[in-house]
Formats: sequence, structure tokens, C-alpha cells
Amino acid sequence: MEDINSTIIALSTPAGYGAIGVIRLSGSKVREIIKPFFADKFSFKHKQVKFAKLFDNQEHIDDVLITYFASPNSYTGEDVIEISCHGSPYIIEKIIDLCLRNGAILAEPGEFTKRAFLNDKMDLSQAEGVDAMIHAKTKHAHDTAKKLLEGKLGTRIKEIKQSLIDTITLLELELDFSDQEIDFTPHSEILDKIKLINIDIQNLIQSYHYGKLIKNGIKTALIGSPNSGKSSLMNAFLQEERMIVSDIPGTTRDSIEESIRRGGYQFRLIDTAGIRDSVDTIENLGIERSKKAIEEADLKLFIIDPSNTNYSEFEPFIDNNTIIVVNKIDISNEKQIKQIQDNYKNFSQIQISAKQHINIHELADLMVNIIKNKEPKNSDLFITIKRHFNSLENLSQELLNTITSIKNNNPSELIVTDMRFALNHLDAILGKTTADDILNNIFANFCIGK
Amino acid sequence: MEDINSTIIALSTPAGYGAIGVIRLSGSKVREIIKPFFADKFSFKHKQVKFAKLFDNQEHIDDVLITYFASPNSYTGEDVIEISCHGSPYIIEKIIDLCLRNGAILAEPGEFTKRAFLNDKMDLSQAEGVDAMIHAKTKHAHDTAKKLLEGKLGTRIKEIKQSLIDTITLLELELDFSDQEIDFTPHSEILDKIKLINIDIQNLIQSYHYGKLIKNGIKTALIGSPNSGKSSLMNAFLQEERMIVSDIPGTTRDSIEESIRRGGYQFRLIDTAGIRDSVDTIENLGIERSKKAIEEADLKLFIIDPSNTNYSEFEPFIDNNTIIVVNKIDISNEKQIKQIQDNYKNFSQIQISAKQHINIHELADLMVNIIKNKEPKNSDLFITIKRHFNSLENLSQELLNTITSIKNNNPSELIVTDMRFALNHLDAILGKTTADDILNNIFANFCIGK
Repeated sequence: MEDINSTIIALSTPAGYGAIGVIRLSGSKVREIIKPFFADKFSFKHKQVKFAKLFDNQEHIDDVLITYFASPNSYTGEDVIEISCHGSPYIIEKIIDLCLRNGAILAEPGEFTKRAFLNDKMDLSQAEGVDAMIHAKTKHAHDTAKKLLEGKLGTRIKEIKQSLIDTITLLELELDFSDQEIDFTPHSEILDKIKLINIDIQNLIQSYHYGKLIKNGIKTALIGSPNSGKSSLMNAFLQEERMIVSDIPGTTRDSIEESIRRGGYQFRLIDTAGIRDSVDTIENLGIERSKKAIEEADLKLFIIDPSNTNYSEFEPFIDNNTIIVVNKIDISNEKQIKQIQDNYKNFSQIQISAKQHINIHELADLMVNIIKNKEPKNSDLFITIKRHFNSLENLSQELLNTITSIKNNNPSELIVTDMRFALNHLDAILGKTTADDILNNIFANFCIGK
Repeated sequence: MEDINSTIIALSTPAGYGAIGVIRLSGSKVREIIKPFFADKFSFKHKQVKFAKLFDNQEHIDDVLITYFASPNSYTGEDVIEISCHGSPYIIEKIIDLCLRNGAILAEPGEFTKRAFLNDKMDLSQAEGVDAMIHAKTKHAHDTAKKLLEGKLGTRIKEIKQSLIDTITLLELELDFSDQEIDFTPHSEILDKIKLINIDIQNLIQSYHYGKLIKNGIKTALIGSPNSGKSSLMNAFLQEERMIVSDIPGTTRDSIEESIRRGGYQFRLIDTAGIRDSVDTIENLGIERSKKAIEEADLKLFIIDPSNTNYSEFEPFIDNNTIIVVNKIDISNEKQIKQIQDNYKNFSQIQISAKQHINIHELADLMVNIIKNKEPKNSDLFITIKRHFNSLENLSQELLNTITSIKNNNPSELIVTDMRFALNHLDAILGKTTADDILNNIFANFCIGK
């Protein structure tokens, strides 16, 4: 990352042709840098928009709107200027180039937000919320990101930290005044306090499983024999317009993945190939890929054509996260359907016709319900970021060490040391003790201009 | 197009994930439409930015910046509000959706600019300049678009219109006072005036050839026998970093077209295949395509390997717009090179080595010079838009009719009628007499949100 004293610049709107492009500058020299490009001498007033003609020497480049935000009341906490110009890649390149020649430097991805963090405008978990907010594709992902950005996780972590500090204080009291006749808190009581803290931490850790589903979408494998109707079901999902929202740009997908949104979730539908052993190497590669996709799936739709009795090969994959989808009910006889119902009576089941679009919405609702049931009951905060999960796991380990230490009647000095290690992991989430390379990693995944 | 009294909305920045997205609304109801989304009651002040939390009922959607522009001092001339939110497709969709539910309607492409035109903020040629400005890929294209947007063509057209009206007035004087003893302007003098106007028009018409090169880029066909080094030259151009600017998004290209910018121009390099007759149908299709590309080229680079004497098949294509590029000078003998020099002594020539990157920049400069020489000498205004070209051609035809009419000693009434037809074509450029379907066509090619 660059010198924090520099003035940075980047295009903050997506690249490409558009009506408007917004170029953002941040740093102490923003006003000096852009002044030479304007013939009009104007004063910069906080949050005031100026219309101005932008020149490169005598050459008129564009008519732009300039908005000035005075430090510290800006996104980064520094002086910030936004130049809103015509959304022309040529003009944008030209204006950025002029500013670079005048002393600005190109911002790295996430550098505006990094500066906001370094200037105490937000803690690190909030900064991560900014990126999560931009990339949220569904209502639940957006809600969770917003809570992160608003600092709700930060607040919770600070509360836990305070409980931990309070408990440490009790032990330190004992150390400081050990030569005096004072009634210290019994270690059994301290043990209970730490166990309570660890329950809080464990709840957050466990929320990560659900948080991942919200953040990354729900990998939904369509499994079943050839001709059971996997592709027809995929098409039926995609054709049912009311449940489909227009395609989300940037969604990662391979050729067989499509995405639908329902109930505030994103379901990533993966059409898997057969999984029978084969002698063909190429085919076997496909089978391996299918097996992997099924194993990694968060949800499985096991599609059965009642007229085909040969579906036992998929039975090893069936679990609580599987919906038995009896397809072709418009052309199957009742006896065959009954047979399947009985076979899988311990699993979620639904009868559909992919071709005739019967019960497609009901199947989608069933999928939503299965995911909704995974929602943690004891917390409205979900961990969605791996880094937070790792810090909390390390923290929990330190708390378990502390608990063992207390149970072993270790001296208070040792117990305090364990607890101070635990504190560090909480600080890491807030960005208080985060190493530069970790910081850089976090912000490197941001958009340019954010 | 929609009802002009409606309030329109669109995303004005390019689609996709980014730091910032700007949603624009225009119309009399902009304030009413967005007010319910904000808990804070704020007043709207012209060109003032407000930071505000945007809600859907109780649900906090995003923190946004709101800028208000009061009619008539806005882009469209109507009340305008810009909402700058996180560049998240989910959030943008959500905010637009809220506004639509509250009475806004989705803007059609170019509808903001169309409203600016209809509200007399600009003439039609200026409106066309907005779109040209956004899509300009080079310095010259940008300069030309800017002149259009600034109204320079409009001003010139208005001057010509005034000359034409002055001349018509002279004739009408004659009609109105024909029964009185006044010295009227002799028709020979009127003839001279019209001829002068037509010269102005012809200059503008002729500038269209150059204007097209500026606007669309210069189709540069690389022709020559197999192994003469066409692909190597293409690569050499692309590798010479100083002349290459990073790829311009949205450039139309087929698989064999690459684009370089030099001297403010864009050269669209097209690698053509051989053009020998073949018995193979598929191959013949390729040959036909190559011939067409060569015939349509604005500039041809005829690449010759001196060791190969069999290049006569390309001679029919060689003209003033061809540069003879003698390649492989690092490995060719002087006699062979001399032979080619003599063969084509009436054409622009250069000796290069594509492999060794010898004289690549010099060749690029030669290409620039050939195009620069096409720049009209008698005008700094170039026509770049086909519609303007068509109107001017029609106008010129009416002037020629008028000239014939005068030469035939037709009565003044008839001459005036011809001249009034001519006036209409000038008004069409300014958008004074432009039919709705033509207007719609013009704006339909704009970006959404502009």
C-alpha cells in the first residue's frame, strides 16, 4: 500500500461507457491537484456541488460536477473531491491522467476504505462490511452485510471484550493485592464467567455455517439418473419468471450452473452428470467432478422418474439436506409414486412435473424452508467472513486453554496470560492488532475506487 | 417515449459492481417520490449534497448521498435528483424499484437528454454531441464531439440559415413591392449569394469523409502474401507499449481486428487472409471476406517480403491510401529491396522489420500523416453524424435546384419556394422540424440514464 500522506485517485463507478462516471480523490492535496484544471476560481464548500468546465491547459475536456467533502466529515476522514464527468472511458482516463501528473497517485483496491479505517471512521469489521454490501446479491446477504457495516458485529465483539477484560481485572486484583486480606473472586466463579463468554463465541462460530450460505449462495445439486428430468427442472426454475430476477452480473458460474433467487436467498443450481463408474477416462473425470459437486452441495434435489426403478446409485448421497423430487407425476402411475414415497418416508418429499410446471414454486418454497431452518435461533448476528470465523475459533481455543488452566489450579499469572492471548483475537476482528499484510489482503479484494 | 410530464428514473453509471452507483431522477415529482424513503426530514437546496439513510419502511437499505438540482438549472431543465449509493446491483435494483412503486417510471435510453432538448437546454445537434462525447475513443473524436456538444455546428448552421433567410428576404421584398418603382437586388447577385452558401455546405459535406475516420476509427487492412509478415506486424504494433493504450471497452471487433491509438486517431488493424482463387468453398468465403475488408479499408498496409517476388495479386488494390511496407529488411538483400522501391516509387514506402521491431513507430507516424492530410483545410468543423450529412446533401440539392431555377429566369415565387425547402433541412439538423420517429431513433441509441 502507498504512503498514507499521499492523495489518491480512482474511478469509483464501474468501468465502461455510461451516462456518468465518478472519479474520487482523497488526501490533503485534493484541492491543489484539481485547481489548475479550472479557469473559474471557485471556493470549495463542504458538500456543495459546483458545475465547472475542466481544461487541460487551453483544451476544454469536459463539463463536470465537483463535490467537495471537508476532512474529517468525509468517507475517508480526509479531504475528498468527487468529479462527476461524462461516462466516457476516454474522458475518465484523461482526467485521471491530468491528476496523476499533478501529484495524485492511483488508489489501490479498497484504499479509500482502508484510509477510513486508519482514520478511525470505522473498525475493520465494518470496513469488511462495505465490500460485503457491494457484493450482496440477495436480501439476506444485504441485511447481514449492512449489520456488519453498521458495526453490529463490532459492537458485539466489544461487549465480549469488555466481559473478558472485567474478568481479567478480577484476577489482576488478586495479583496486585495478593499480600492483603481481601476477599477475592473465587476461581470457580471466574470459570463460570469464562464458560459463559465461550458460549457466546461458540454461537457466533456456529452461525458461520448459515452465514456462508447467505454470503455465497446455496449450492444446490440436481442429482438423478439420466432422463429423470434434471435439465427440465433447471429450465422450469429459470422459466418461472416470478421467482427469477434478472441475471446478476459477475456471478461466478461454470457452464452448468444457473442461479435463482427466492425468499431472500440465492440458490446456485448445479446440474450434475451421472455418477456410474465408467472405463472412459474423460467420462470418469466428469463423474469425479459430479461426485465432488454433490459432496460440496448445501442442498440436494434428488430427482426420480417413477418409471425408472434403477436409482439406487444415488442413495449414498442422500441426507437431511436432500429433497426427494418425484418428477413426471403427470405421466406416472400411482403405484410407482407410492413406492418411492415409502422408500424415502424419512426425507422431505415433493411431487412435481418439470415439463408441465406443476409444483415448481412449491418445490422452491420447500428449498427456502430447509435453509430457513438452518438459521441460528440464538443470535441475529451471523458470521459471514472466514477471517472472523478463524479469529473466533482461535479465541475459543484460548478460552478452553484458560478453562483447563483454572481447572488445573494454575497460578493466576498463567491464567491471565491465557486470557490476554484470547483478547488479541478479538482485537484482530476489530483491526486493532492486525498485521499489515493481513490488512493489505483484506483490502486487495475490494473494488477499485472504494 | 413516455409522457413528458412523468418523472423518470435510471441508473446513470455503468452496470456492474463498483464503489459507487448513481441513480438519476428527473421530473416535477422527484422530491415527493424519494421523500418517504428518508426518516430525516430535510429541505432540498439546489446543488447541495445531503447524506441520508435510505429506508424501505423500517428496513435500512443503504446510506446515500442525495444531490438536488432545481428546475430550470439542471441537465434536463426539470427538477433532478441524483442518488449516489453503494455500487451494488442489489441495492441499485432495490432503490429503483422503490421509486417505481412510488410513481417514477423507467427512463428510456437517452430520455434525460431528450428532455434537455425538448426543454430548450440544447439543440438536437448538441444532444447528438452528448452521445458522441461518451463514445469518443480518441483525442480527435473527443474534440469533434465536444465542438458538437458545445453547439459549434449548431452555431454554424444558424449562420448559414441566417444568410439564406437574408437572401430570401431580398426576393420577398421584390414580391411584396413588385408594383413599386424600387431597385431590387438583381437575380445574378442572388445567384452569387446562393452559390457562396452552397460552397459552405459542400465544405461541410466533404468533411464527413474525414469525420467518419475520426468517429469510427480508421479501417486499416494489412494485406500481403502468406508469410510476408502481416501477423508479425500486428504483434509488433500491439507490443510497442508507448503507442498502445489499454484496451478500450466496447470496441467492436471481429477475431482478427485489433485497435491501436496514435496521434489522436484510432487505427483498426485488420489482418486479411490471402485472396487467391480457390476451389474450396469455405476458403472462398474467407477470400470474399478479405476482398471486402480490403475494399472497405480507409488505409492499406501492403506488406512485402523482398525474398518473395510473387505479390502481384495485390496490385489491383493499391491506391493513394496504401503504404508499401517492405518487411524483413534485417534478412533481405539490398537488390531485392531496391527492386520493390522502384516498382512502387509513386507510393508511400517504408522499410521495416516486424520481428526486430525496426521502424514500427515510423510506420505508425506515416499512417498518422496520411490521415492527417485528409483533414479538411477550409473548416475546423467536421460532420461526423450521418443524419447531418444526409440533411446537408438534401439542402445542397435544394440549393442547386434554386440555382437552376434562377438561371431559367423562373418567377421569384418559385425561387423562394425552393429556398424555403432548403431552410427545412437546416432546421432538421437543429431539431426544429424533426419528426417524432426520427427523434426517437436518435435517442434510442443513447446509454440508459443519459
